[in-house]
Amino acid sequence: MDLAELIEIEAIKRLKYAYMRCVDQKLWDDIVDCFTEDITVAYDSGNHSFEGRDTVVKFLSRSMPATKLTSHRAHQPEIDITGPDTAEATWAMDDAVMDLARTTTIRGAGFYSDSYRKVDGQWKICRTGYLRTYMEIFQTEEAPGFQPAPTWWWTDDNVRSLPKESDPGRGTAPIDNR
Amino acid sequence: MDLAELIEIEAIKRLKYAYMRCVDQKLWDDIVDCFTEDITVAYDSGNHSFEGRDTVVKFLSRSMPATKLTSHRAHQPEIDITGPDTAEATWAMDDAVMDLARTTTIRGAGFYSDSYRKVDGQWKICRTGYLRTYMEIFQTEEAPGFQPAPTWWWTDDNVRSLPKESDPGRGTAPIDNR
Amino acid sequence: MDLAELIEIEAIKRLKYAYMRCVDQKLWDDIVDCFTEDITVAYDSGNHSFEGRDTVVKFLSRSMPATKLTSHRAHQPEIDITGPDTAEATWAMDDAVMDLARTTTIRGAGFYSDSYRKVDGQWKICRTGYLRTYMEIFQTEEAPGFQPAPTWWWTDDNVRSLPKESDPGRGTAPIDNR
Repeated sequence: MDLAELIEIEAIKRLKYAYMRCVDQKLWDDIVDCFTEDITVAYDSGNHSFEGRDTVVKFLSRSMPATKLTSHRAHQPEIDITGPDTAEATWAMDDAVMDLARTTTIRGAGFYSDSYRKVDGQWKICRTGYLRTYMEIFQTEEAPGFQPAPTWWWTDDNVRSLPKESDPGRGTAPIDNR
Repeated sequence: MDLAELIEIEAIKRLKYAYMRCVDQKLWDDIVDCFTEDITVAYDSGNHSFEGRDTVVKFLSRSMPATKLTSHRAHQPEIDITGPDTAEATWAMDDAVMDLARTTTIRGAGFYSDSYRKVDGQWKICRTGYLRTYMEIFQTEEAPGFQPAPTWWWTDDNVRSLPKESDPGRGTAPIDNR
Repeated sequence: MDLAELIEIEAIKRLKYAYMRCVDQKLWDDIVDCFTEDITVAYDSGNHSFEGRDTVVKFLSRSMPATKLTSHRAHQPEIDITGPDTAEATWAMDDAVMDLARTTTIRGAGFYSDSYRKVDGQWKICRTGYLRTYMEIFQTEEAPGFQPAPTWWWTDDNVRSLPKESDPGRGTAPIDNR
């Protein structure tokens, strides 16, 4: 390994972290910059497989309306620079999805397998997907004493009156990420 | 990016990791070194905002008595060196607080926004805060079959006879971190 | 810190990440390469202490049969290169173990303390162990509406008919990690 490789590795880590952040902050305009135009994805052991940047962004934004509060975390990067403009990586993944409309919380773990390509000097994700190690589904409505709590998407009033997915007004409310 | 920048980035990561570790290991004397004297914090979407190192350390140590077992994790660093002695970063955050006195466990996630400043050649946190993506509160007393388990703060006997916050003798017991 | 040190630090991170991945993917042949022959371990505050690579690998593989779905995560590395062939590190640790046979899920957190040694130019773990900050045990069978979900080790049919530890045919089934 040399300096050039360390610099590329740090750049790829940042790319992945920006991608994960955009998912949880629902920044669907910004996430576009993380992908090559011809990206292929195989999320959740291939259960959700898509090709092409527009298709992937549409899938992500529809999968994660404002009624789903999520944390997607990428850990433990094992990144190989495979050429001047190509790289591969394995990452550990943890995710949690608190679905306010369905009153479920899902927690899972797995491993990402990614490919990256440099386009005009910028690393982009050109292939991504993960296999799950496990997933747990909790029915939070039935859990004794369970309370979801306000976040940056929800004021106290919103939490007291939880949104339904069928309620069109909620999912499209402007989101203040700061 | 160059070597000098990579070195600063690694140093800032270590600073953040030392800070997070001091919080969970309740090392209130050591945590002082992580902060500038004029630090400002806005924890939990600004619900807990303070100025000045002494005030912040006092808040942290009072918020996390020995009856609260915690894990605070900083992930996915996106660090920008903005000058010879200044830097900014965004981090993903996961936290869990198992409150033995209140028999609740809180799990949450969010994003930190930090500023750093070099003082006498050492990076320090001069501004920090986070916005939550979500938080879940579990009443563990009511959870079927739930058991908390011994840790380095509690012997088996202590766990069988769980402390109350009103029990002054417990929270001040000497803590063996090794 | 200089370039040589940054390169060693990145190499040690990769070693640790490969080790953690091998544990969760149950790659007991591959994990051997992560350890020196004379490795000593003190897992779970020393409750599980062993010496020697073969003994450690045997413990790990027996502790984590196919009926236990796990995520072990190492975070927040504070790595010190202490000599040309030696290094020390502290890591934050999160773990979750979903035991399908006992219908429990355990979630915990703590801190690793590691030593590394270079053998024939490759970093290896020569000492590792962790102290827990806390652990929570959930009886998932009794949790209202709880569902475990298929993973790469279990087809839908396997999940509907959950294995018991006493069922010898299950734990030895071939595992497809891709």
